[in-house]
Amino acid sequence: MITIRILHESTIQTLPVADLSTINVADLKPGALVWVDMMQPTKEEEQMVLGSWFPVHELVRADIARALRANAEEQLHHPKVEDYDGYLFVIVHALRPDEDEDVQLSIIIGANVLITHHEELLHAIDDLAVACEHSTKAFRRGPDYLLHLMLDAMVERYLPHVSQIEDKLYALEESTLDNPSQQCLQEILAMKRRIQAMRRIVVYTREIVNRLARGDFDLISRDESFYYRNVYDHLIRVTDQLEATRELAMSLMEVYFSSTASKLNQVIKVLTVISTIFLPLTFISSVYGMNFEFMPELHWKYGYAMVWGVILSVAIGMGIMFRKRGWLGGR
Amino acid sequence: MITIRILHESTIQTLPVADLSTINVADLKPGALVWVDMMQPTKEEEQMVLGSWFPVHELVRADIARALRANAEEQLHHPKVEDYDGYLFVIVHALRPDEDEDVQLSIIIGANVLITHHEELLHAIDDLAVACEHSTKAFRRGPDYLLHLMLDAMVERYLPHVSQIEDKLYALEESTLDNPSQQCLQEILAMKRRIQAMRRIVVYTREIVNRLARGDFDLISRDESFYYRNVYDHLIRVTDQLEATRELAMSLMEVYFSSTASKLNQVIKVLTVISTIFLPLTFISSVYGMNFEFMPELHWKYGYAMVWGVILSVAIGMGIMFRKRGWLGGR
Amino acid sequence: MITIRILHESTIQTLPVADLSTINVADLKPGALVWVDMMQPTKEEEQMVLGSWFPVHELVRADIARALRANAEEQLHHPKVEDYDGYLFVIVHALRPDEDEDVQLSIIIGANVLITHHEELLHAIDDLAVACEHSTKAFRRGPDYLLHLMLDAMVERYLPHVSQIEDKLYALEESTLDNPSQQCLQEILAMKRRIQAMRRIVVYTREIVNRLARGDFDLISRDESFYYRNVYDHLIRVTDQLEATRELAMSLMEVYFSSTASKLNQVIKVLTVISTIFLPLTFISSVYGMNFEFMPELHWKYGYAMVWGVILSVAIGMGIMFRKRGWLGGR
Amino acid sequence: MITIRILHESTIQTLPVADLSTINVADLKPGALVWVDMMQPTKEEEQMVLGSWFPVHELVRADIARALRANAEEQLHHPKVEDYDGYLFVIVHALRPDEDEDVQLSIIIGANVLITHHEELLHAIDDLAVACEHSTKAFRRGPDYLLHLMLDAMVERYLPHVSQIEDKLYALEESTLDNPSQQCLQEILAMKRRIQAMRRIVVYTREIVNRLARGDFDLISRDESFYYRNVYDHLIRVTDQLEATRELAMSLMEVYFSSTASKLNQVIKVLTVISTIFLPLTFISSVYGMNFEFMPELHWKYGYAMVWGVILSVAIGMGIMFRKRGWLGGR
Amino acid sequence: MITIRILHESTIQTLPVADLSTINVADLKPGALVWVDMMQPTKEEEQMVLGSWFPVHELVRADIARALRANAEEQLHHPKVEDYDGYLFVIVHALRPDEDEDVQLSIIIGANVLITHHEELLHAIDDLAVACEHSTKAFRRGPDYLLHLMLDAMVERYLPHVSQIEDKLYALEESTLDNPSQQCLQEILAMKRRIQAMRRIVVYTREIVNRLARGDFDLISRDESFYYRNVYDHLIRVTDQLEATRELAMSLMEVYFSSTASKLNQVIKVLTVISTIFLPLTFISSVYGMNFEFMPELHWKYGYAMVWGVILSVAIGMGIMFRKRGWLGGR
Repeated sequence: MITIRILHESTIQTLPVADLSTINVADLKPGALVWVDMMQPTKEEEQMVLGSWFPVHELVRADIARALRANAEEQLHHPKVEDYDGYLFVIVHALRPDEDEDVQLSIIIGANVLITHHEELLHAIDDLAVACEHSTKAFRRGPDYLLHLMLDAMVERYLPHVSQIEDKLYALEESTLDNPSQQCLQEILAMKRRIQAMRRIVVYTREIVNRLARGDFDLISRDESFYYRNVYDHLIRVTDQLEATRELAMSLMEVYFSSTASKLNQVIKVLTVISTIFLPLTFISSVYGMNFEFMPELHWKYGYAMVWGVILSVAIGMGIMFRKRGWLGGR
Repeated sequence: MITIRILHESTIQTLPVADLSTINVADLKPGALVWVDMMQPTKEEEQMVLGSWFPVHELVRADIARALRANAEEQLHHPKVEDYDGYLFVIVHALRPDEDEDVQLSIIIGANVLITHHEELLHAIDDLAVACEHSTKAFRRGPDYLLHLMLDAMVERYLPHVSQIEDKLYALEESTLDNPSQQCLQEILAMKRRIQAMRRIVVYTREIVNRLARGDFDLISRDESFYYRNVYDHLIRVTDQLEATRELAMSLMEVYFSSTASKLNQVIKVLTVISTIFLPLTFISSVYGMNFEFMPELHWKYGYAMVWGVILSVAIGMGIMFRKRGWLGGR
Repeated sequence: MITIRILHESTIQTLPVADLSTINVADLKPGALVWVDMMQPTKEEEQMVLGSWFPVHELVRADIARALRANAEEQLHHPKVEDYDGYLFVIVHALRPDEDEDVQLSIIIGANVLITHHEELLHAIDDLAVACEHSTKAFRRGPDYLLHLMLDAMVERYLPHVSQIEDKLYALEESTLDNPSQQCLQEILAMKRRIQAMRRIVVYTREIVNRLARGDFDLISRDESFYYRNVYDHLIRVTDQLEATRELAMSLMEVYFSSTASKLNQVIKVLTVISTIFLPLTFISSVYGMNFEFMPELHWKYGYAMVWGVILSVAIGMGIMFRKRGWLGGR
Repeated sequence: MITIRILHESTIQTLPVADLSTINVADLKPGALVWVDMMQPTKEEEQMVLGSWFPVHELVRADIARALRANAEEQLHHPKVEDYDGYLFVIVHALRPDEDEDVQLSIIIGANVLITHHEELLHAIDDLAVACEHSTKAFRRGPDYLLHLMLDAMVERYLPHVSQIEDKLYALEESTLDNPSQQCLQEILAMKRRIQAMRRIVVYTREIVNRLARGDFDLISRDESFYYRNVYDHLIRVTDQLEATRELAMSLMEVYFSSTASKLNQVIKVLTVISTIFLPLTFISSVYGMNFEFMPELHWKYGYAMVWGVILSVAIGMGIMFRKRGWLGGR
Repeated sequence: MITIRILHESTIQTLPVADLSTINVADLKPGALVWVDMMQPTKEEEQMVLGSWFPVHELVRADIARALRANAEEQLHHPKVEDYDGYLFVIVHALRPDEDEDVQLSIIIGANVLITHHEELLHAIDDLAVACEHSTKAFRRGPDYLLHLMLDAMVERYLPHVSQIEDKLYALEESTLDNPSQQCLQEILAMKRRIQAMRRIVVYTREIVNRLARGDFDLISRDESFYYRNVYDHLIRVTDQLEATRELAMSLMEVYFSSTASKLNQVIKVLTVISTIFLPLTFISSVYGMNFEFMPELHWKYGYAMVWGVILSVAIGMGIMFRKRGWLGGR
């Protein structure tokens, strides 16, 4: 699906796809801006936009195409920014929090053109579209400002997402303390991997935003540099939160092992208590299994009953003592 | 309850609610300032202030209303700052340390107007009210300065609160070392959750204060920017303290597990000592349970007594040895 | 005891207490400076200085008076700085390292006046007094510079004190590894609490110094701001050291538990070795306690001796094997 | 192999080695630039370039020669930068990620000359060569800019390499949790050593880049300083990632030990369960091994069968109970 | 031994000690410079230099003299810098890496004079001497620049020394994992103490270099300030490395305890296996020790042999099962 928005005399119009060919990029006046958003485009649509209307380098198209295959084979391209003749090519990863996954968002910005390509509905794109409906302010500041808005919208979602991960970890901690099952361990590992993935995206995005902020590219005006710095600072705060969350996940691992060990030791304690009760009893009975000629007790009438009495008293005595000291079970 | 304060020729007057309608916001001269504080306002009061006197966007009123429900359902709105036409809408969380909870404070600042809304008595509001009674200095610097004062007063309470949490953790550590009960664990978890909540509020508040400080909003004059930076720095120091406290809470978890394990191992040691004493005794008696034809001891007159003697000596000997080595109990 | 120093035509004179009333604060020329140091003043002396000579607010006197009670009830006032009309009131905590405690130092600075109040001999005061004897340089730069000197002298003692705590922790580590007694644990906890107290003082002092440095107060000239920043930087370095020390103390806790567990496991190992030796022996003897009709060994002449032989060989053989493997004791 | 590239009237020519002697370094005009890349040069080639064409200090040649031996004896020279008369000598370590090793890259830069020496194909050199084929822009900015490009290309590869190490660690964590074998431990240790090596290279490279950035050397123009600062910032981000990875490796060690202990305790639990079942049984049978005269059970016809019944019921009962509580195996 | 170097018309001459008295400090022209290096001076030499030629304060001489005693009693003076009339007195600690110890280096710098005092050969002094032989550049920049060179040379040795400590720790880790002996623990503790000592020196040196860098002293020209800042930055990087190394040493402690516990648990497992094999055997034999009248097996001809058969099958069966599960030994 292709959506075309064009700034026309201080209003933003949405054009039908067919009209794209009527716009000549070279003829666009300074201040004009065309945004072409491709969501799951067909091969023909892609060829039309990136082949004929705004022809880009073969490598750029290959990288964009990869987004599709990547989703299937689960190997996204690293976020990057590349400076081509007359346009800038940016790959970033946007969050799809509901599914705990990231999707590729490819962006091309030219002097008066913004082209976005993605395989799924993205908040960053939606937010930008909504902003455009409300006001032409953003549009009038050029594609570099729109790029910043998209990045900002993307980064804005990171912090709540990290908070969400944190909440899950705290819930996981409680269930781990309660019953440290294998499933808990699997979930902890899954969370750790999720955090690692997040951290990597943030690190690479920081690299990109840093490059955009430091004025390496002619297409990013120096005035916007300040906005990219804000995004960068935001990313640093996200990193801080992620670090804390990572530590939490790491400590959760220890909680799991400690909890497992604790449960196990409880079991061993109970077993040891049982052994400890029966050993003296066996000793007593083995005493009267001795074959000495002169063992007066053996000939008493109530000797046997007496021994049972002793055995039971010892058993009950130890049982009471252990219970009193809380050695018999529970915690 | 609604409290209205107005700066009038270098004095601050408190007006009756009824007089609010006599003030026309549009007619206020530069330098004039009206502060309307709503604490648990009725629906009518709210309508009067935010509906007719200073009409705000529907969404703002919805967010403010949510504070009420939030308190009930325990889900506060994330702190945020939003730029509307002619006014700024800020939601922050203030501490209610005595109850270990946070409450929502909604603030609207216009060119000459400050409106605050909260469901409970708040220190930040009290402090501002007191400051206004003493001097008109703060009032004369405009609503953006008053906002900064409120935030400062709020943040000022964070550090002592963190210190308090720290004190509790140290007390908890001692009781955990003494007797690592389930209740200790529950309290540790509660403290961890409290720290996490605090950290999240601080992080979100930092985001807001950062945005206020960096001059994104026209209603915050550049001169006040410096003051917001101070608040921001203060928040960073609070974050540092919270980090230390969080680490403390995490280490407390380890103390709990170590302490539990230590207690348990003591028990197992004592049980093992008992087993170790009875095994040799059982061996001795089982020796004389053997049925060999030629076992001279069995026919001795005092064989049986002798065996008891040996058994008792071994038992007592081991008991003494274990006691001497401190293996029998205590620590 | 009250000590009065006055800068008089480029010399510093120490006046008798009685002469205080001859000095009129309002008449002091710019560049003049009077330093009144009160150590454990009587109620009359205090009244004379803070009541008639340099009258201060009731609250200030209450806070100063609290220092006395605080020492008794062990609850010091938080360090703070307050701006009054015509003077600045500062409360800081000075170290009394020999006793591992902190005492309150109250400071009032006016345009030409410095008043200090403390209940004990303090290095910070001594250092300033010594500096004044040597040169009038410091005095001539005004009370704000003297305040900075006092804070600097105070902070200067923090780093060696932290180093001292660190040394004690390392000594404690060694004794803990050697013999992890309850007393070690108590000392570790005491050290942790000491570090926490230090950290809190440093954090609050940082807040104060930060406020003094950032030019919030008219009585602190902007030129001195730079010096306060130095003190602040120094405090940050102290914080870093404290963090490292805190981590050390935390790890010491783990060392204690690991060491305890290690000792305990050694005991359990030895006990288990004993059990393991006696179980096979008991098995052997129980074999010959069986009542089969056809057990040839029972009727052999040397059957009994032979069994003893087997028992002893097994016992000695296992003993040798365990000793060889180092399972019998030591480490 | 020697490759010679020369900037000639805005084109870059690759000269045959024989022509090197035709270029007189002293005659090179400002703006001209010769890059001589030596890969595994013969002794004669080295003598030709560094002996006659661009004569360098004996020590420089010794350090370069050491790269060869170093590869054999596995002891690379520390990265360093040295200022000689008329040229700068830099040693850095480049990654050879496929083999998890680092190789020495020696660089000499003069006013119009860049000489590189390495024993293997390096990405940093390739990238520079490719860049030169595409455009003369880089060449025209002089050897100091080329040096920066090489360092940048080198550092660019660090981050993905660290990510790769991280991935391996996560895979290792899973296999360690599954089966904590000795081989896992060996791999963890190998990863730790790899990370340590990386960290050291990064630290030393930071020192070099810092010196290049701060304008210590006349041959690095102040304008390029900014680019070196970027490389430095990049290195700091790499350091951050390495720190996180190092912590991960450290925690993996704990996972290994916890996992080992957990497996072992499972075994001990099962063994203890077996003991605990047999002890009561032995007690029962030993009771009927007693020699009392009056033990009615002994004379019952089905006494023996009954005892077997009791023994089996106890054994089965305990087995069922233990299984129900999950004490018998698995996790 | 005293070495005197004097800058004389753009050459540096080494004077005989006797000629020292011919130089009049007061007569030295601006730009002239005398460096007096005292290594293990006799009392007379010291008196000659610091008593008559360049008279310094009594306290300075006492502090210098303390270096000697300190080496004996192992208590070095804290690094410090003091401003005297006409000269600056600096105490720093230099590394003697070969012996893992630090020695005091006392430095006095005047307007045209540099006096150094040390008890042993020091790299920092050697490096400076070598630098002076090669060029007069450094000498011509005055004593403050020479001081910076010495500090730089000193600090330059810190990083490789830390790397060395790190290498030792990694080697120690491997040997600890292999065989966690008491000696390993001793070495770990020694390393920790070494790191702590290093850290303390670095912290104190940072304080000094910071004071020198911030322009507190008139004898340090503002132009040199920049160089001291470089030394300071270098020290911060050393601190970072030390922190990582410290963490490594701390984690090593845990490795030691985990490794000890692991070894011990292996032993306990093997012992438990032995017990677990013998308990069922003892049960079987005790069954046939019962005295029931009607136990058919007792009267069978091959009953006894049969029991032995059962016992051996059970023992061998369990042995095989345990071996198969890998419970019998090794890891």
